[in-house]
Amino acid sequence: MEKANLIDGRAISQQIHSETKERVEALKQRGVQPGLVFVRVGEDPASKVYVGMKEKRSAEAGIHSTTKVLAETTTQEELLKLIHELNANPDVHGILVQAPLPGPISEQVIFSTVSPSKDVDGFHPENVGKLMLGDTTGFRPCTPAGVHELLIRSKVKTSGSQVVVLGRGNIVGKPMTAILCQKSDHANATVSLCHSRTKNIAEHCRAADIIIAAMGVPLFVKEDMVSEGATIIDVGVNRISDENAPKGYRLVGDVDFEKIQPKAGLITPNPGGVGPMTIAMLLQNTVLAAEKQTS
Amino acid sequence: MEKANLIDGRAISQQIHSETKERVEALKQRGVQPGLVFVRVGEDPASKVYVGMKEKRSAEAGIHSTTKVLAETTTQEELLKLIHELNANPDVHGILVQAPLPGPISEQVIFSTVSPSKDVDGFHPENVGKLMLGDTTGFRPCTPAGVHELLIRSKVKTSGSQVVVLGRGNIVGKPMTAILCQKSDHANATVSLCHSRTKNIAEHCRAADIIIAAMGVPLFVKEDMVSEGATIIDVGVNRISDENAPKGYRLVGDVDFEKIQPKAGLITPNPGGVGPMTIAMLLQNTVLAAEKQTS
Repeated sequence: MEKANLIDGRAISQQIHSETKERVEALKQRGVQPGLVFVRVGEDPASKVYVGMKEKRSAEAGIHSTTKVLAETTTQEELLKLIHELNANPDVHGILVQAPLPGPISEQVIFSTVSPSKDVDGFHPENVGKLMLGDTTGFRPCTPAGVHELLIRSKVKTSGSQVVVLGRGNIVGKPMTAILCQKSDHANATVSLCHSRTKNIAEHCRAADIIIAAMGVPLFVKEDMVSEGATIIDVGVNRISDENAPKGYRLVGDVDFEKIQPKAGLITPNPGGVGPMTIAMLLQNTVLAAEKQTS
Repeated sequence: MEKANLIDGRAISQQIHSETKERVEALKQRGVQPGLVFVRVGEDPASKVYVGMKEKRSAEAGIHSTTKVLAETTTQEELLKLIHELNANPDVHGILVQAPLPGPISEQVIFSTVSPSKDVDGFHPENVGKLMLGDTTGFRPCTPAGVHELLIRSKVKTSGSQVVVLGRGNIVGKPMTAILCQKSDHANATVSLCHSRTKNIAEHCRAADIIIAAMGVPLFVKEDMVSEGATIIDVGVNRISDENAPKGYRLVGDVDFEKIQPKAGLITPNPGGVGPMTIAMLLQNTVLAAEKQTS
């Protein structure tokens, strides 16, 4: 018998999607068409898929999106010029530059050039700083914000809880820590930020009420690392080779779901957990950007 | 017999002070006079003392400082106007607005208005965000940067170490976490950010190789919370009433120093530990600001 302890990311993302649609409608009624521009440089196959999904969901929400596709050989100066134009264009409320960018272009420079008020990815240092400072006037990065929504809407108590964040990346681990450590009702957690250099990582995990796995290591979190009743959030998307799969690989998370599910309090499936939340939060950020820029 | 395990903040801050003086000399030789402006609003006695100390040390380092004293009744608009003037003044390389500000003025607004390139306090969201992202082009807040220097210059190994930061304030606890979690030789620590809502805080402390206490609770860290050989950094400055003291109070830290010293590997005295580092780092930030603005 399957344990009914799944956090249904698809259903929760649909809820958020509906809320966003209503806000888009309200904007349209006062003559504002929320606009989002995707910038994609080169022909990275994963980037094409991601941007394609984001375009589709934007359209469903009533957000007008445009994708600027630049050649792999684009220089940093050319990309900066485009971003300055988009920053200055009042019809563009949100700008998303799809990572990874080709080698010679500095993501740090590019992300810092997107106007903080149009930075719907939440990667600009000013928005990251606001997140850390507990200043709620900025944009939150989409994936950790999505995890936060999963926790809130699944009524997982974070206040006073011991949280282990696995992985200290700029896109998930660090901002996740920043969100959950704040002095506020839906945060107030004690966060231990663990990574490749952590001693006794299993011990940290066993002491956790909530584990958020974003290491990028396939099936890193094993059954014996999880205490009975803990909430397990799997952010990982890893390719592992599989001869029997049509493409020669399959995608697995950072969590050994099959073994851990019976032990967990709540757990995200993967796919269908964190994945759908990222785009939902991107569109929420976009409608928020449009609201702020036109209020 | 006294155990010789003190981290001598006075000596280390003097080292940094000497390095800063040399950099000031180098700037002067190419015609640049580093300039720092203190802004003090109202007559808070502690603020007067702090700004006075900072003025004195600036002068010793060869930094030209000016203090703008504004009345308690100053409005936010008036203060913003002054900050915009200072942002635009090329002779001013660093701006420090002394907290706390009178009630009607938002520190968040004020700190975000100081130009990030003159924000020698490291409080602007853009600088906080850079710190979190591991982007070293910003300014680090002085107190946690000072603690970091104490650890580095006392050869305390942070890489792979378990660090407990006590207190999640914007001035110490959060940026301290941001500094020590980074992927770099002098960081690479596993940081658990603990606070008033943390369960089992003593247990966290006992598992720590390094404890950084910035709770603002007098003598919070007791002997039984510290494991043998741990490094203990006391950031706390708390007034407790004392009938026998001339002023009716005395200052104590967050750490029960007397009892813990024999057990600790290294420990900061208080005063004479973290205290002198804050101003040393402020002046280091100021000379860095002058270098960047004139390079």
